[in-house]
Amino acid sequence: MTTDSGKKTRRTIHQHQWHQAWDNSIPPLATIQSGEEVFFDLLDASNGEIKPDSTVDTLRALDFSRVDQVNGPIYVEGAEPGDTLEVEMLDLQPASWGWTANIPGFGLLADEFPEPALKIWDLSAGADGWGEFAPGIRIPLSPFCGEIGLAPAEPGAFSTIPPYHHGGNMDTKHLTKGAHLYLPVQVPGALFSMGDGHAAQGDGEVCGTAIETPMRATVRLTVHKDKKVQQPHFLTAGPLTPRTNTDRYYATDGIAPDLLEATRSAVRHMIEHLHTTYGLSRVESYMLCSVAVDLKLCEVVDMPNFLVGAFLPLSIFSK
Amino acid sequence: MTTDSGKKTRRTIHQHQWHQAWDNSIPPLATIQSGEEVFFDLLDASNGEIKPDSTVDTLRALDFSRVDQVNGPIYVEGAEPGDTLEVEMLDLQPASWGWTANIPGFGLLADEFPEPALKIWDLSAGADGWGEFAPGIRIPLSPFCGEIGLAPAEPGAFSTIPPYHHGGNMDTKHLTKGAHLYLPVQVPGALFSMGDGHAAQGDGEVCGTAIETPMRATVRLTVHKDKKVQQPHFLTAGPLTPRTNTDRYYATDGIAPDLLEATRSAVRHMIEHLHTTYGLSRVESYMLCSVAVDLKLCEVVDMPNFLVGAFLPLSIFSK
Repeated sequence: MTTDSGKKTRRTIHQHQWHQAWDNSIPPLATIQSGEEVFFDLLDASNGEIKPDSTVDTLRALDFSRVDQVNGPIYVEGAEPGDTLEVEMLDLQPASWGWTANIPGFGLLADEFPEPALKIWDLSAGADGWGEFAPGIRIPLSPFCGEIGLAPAEPGAFSTIPPYHHGGNMDTKHLTKGAHLYLPVQVPGALFSMGDGHAAQGDGEVCGTAIETPMRATVRLTVHKDKKVQQPHFLTAGPLTPRTNTDRYYATDGIAPDLLEATRSAVRHMIEHLHTTYGLSRVESYMLCSVAVDLKLCEVVDMPNFLVGAFLPLSIFSK
Repeated sequence: MTTDSGKKTRRTIHQHQWHQAWDNSIPPLATIQSGEEVFFDLLDASNGEIKPDSTVDTLRALDFSRVDQVNGPIYVEGAEPGDTLEVEMLDLQPASWGWTANIPGFGLLADEFPEPALKIWDLSAGADGWGEFAPGIRIPLSPFCGEIGLAPAEPGAFSTIPPYHHGGNMDTKHLTKGAHLYLPVQVPGALFSMGDGHAAQGDGEVCGTAIETPMRATVRLTVHKDKKVQQPHFLTAGPLTPRTNTDRYYATDGIAPDLLEATRSAVRHMIEHLHTTYGLSRVESYMLCSVAVDLKLCEVVDMPNFLVGAFLPLSIFSK
């Protein structure tokens, strides 16, 4: 059974209406009926601290007590613990600019990349356009939101940095316009929030940031009583990565008895490949991996060694 | 520099010419020049023990001292430690049948699936055809070999079960016809072997077997003196998974502070989804994951939780 009111009211959640923890004691900004649309006007994940004219000095001065905010929460009438909240991505429009950073202390290879780095992107061509990483390297945009989640059942304030079984910072690039996400409701009203606009990202987000951007997002929230999920499920909008999966891929393997070390190794090898083949610096290569290279678990059963592949789409390079 | 003799001689390696360890003391079956083609007539990974009329009783009686064999080795003239051997997949033709098994003690969820199970596939439609898993569920074939590797530098016999930095049981579904694999040469002559034909597989091969099949494989082996790789690299034949990436995907997440547990959790959720949605038994669902569901590392940086996604291509279901 789907409790859909059929109403098409559209609430707006503004940039300043953010919170910075998953916490079921945060009062809702609005109450909607199942099936209603909500429009979110979202700042980027730096909460507006990074701007189009920022430099690495901005990164050095970043106030981490304000970042990774999410906007909401929304109380959805009829949602009860044990239900599933469907989040349909109706529209996702990035701003005309974005940023990618290596922030010291964050990222898969944080120990190997201790220095800050910042890339500002021109995204003025819009959601169907490209961002130029360097001359001859263009990333097609495929906008989504990294943070999409519900309040937890447990009392207290839970960091917005990790994802949880009730969603949060999932950083899942496949949640693009037309996708449907299913989250397990933990508390009455579900208490839905979202944020962290990404214009493009590789599977893994290895340096810790994507093409971060302010985002205008419209979603439809629907309560399902019969569908049960323990952790997030989703239905993609169509075939995967349609804008990059148009040519061959070059892949580098990481093979190791520890899955995380295999992952780190695959990325290290891709950084080396990008550095030697395309003349990018190592930190540029690392950041390009984060926005464009997809990590796959090619083999997880041939003990004692796992094999992780880092897949570089050659469609991003000019011919 | 590429040492390519330009010769087009085509050697044949027969089914019985197998060995069962990566061991640099195994004498080569043939010596070729760089750039030559080799044709391998390969038995399946059970080394012929499983046949089209086999049952789970065959699995119970399996002689594990003979399985996971590879055919070769081939000595490539001019190959020296530090060089790279390019393996171009020129042709891959599966047999007219195949098998998928849950073998007790093997697989990502071996502890949860202790009972043997066996599925025999009709693959008579050939490499461009489909295998029917169950009524209404057809897996498009995308043939490759799981085992592709070189002899190690270290003396002694190394199991053919795991992959190594010099290749081996990589079980990488993207090494299809037209792909180019690059392996780091460890010993003079490289000592190349291959085996383990797969007609189709998901990224991960979670139950431990793919659509296993005898394979006729033709490869070109070329020595590169200038290209350096530490672990395998490869160039795919074109866009990824072109025969399954034609429709939406349904994905289930695994979110946990341990990457392996996140992977196991994602697969458990997909098994539950297949069981409840399509009426498959749990072990059938697990085997379908192994042959068709792709594992992706969606997020590896939002500490303390990793997010692994198990992606089911909806194109395998009849409409």
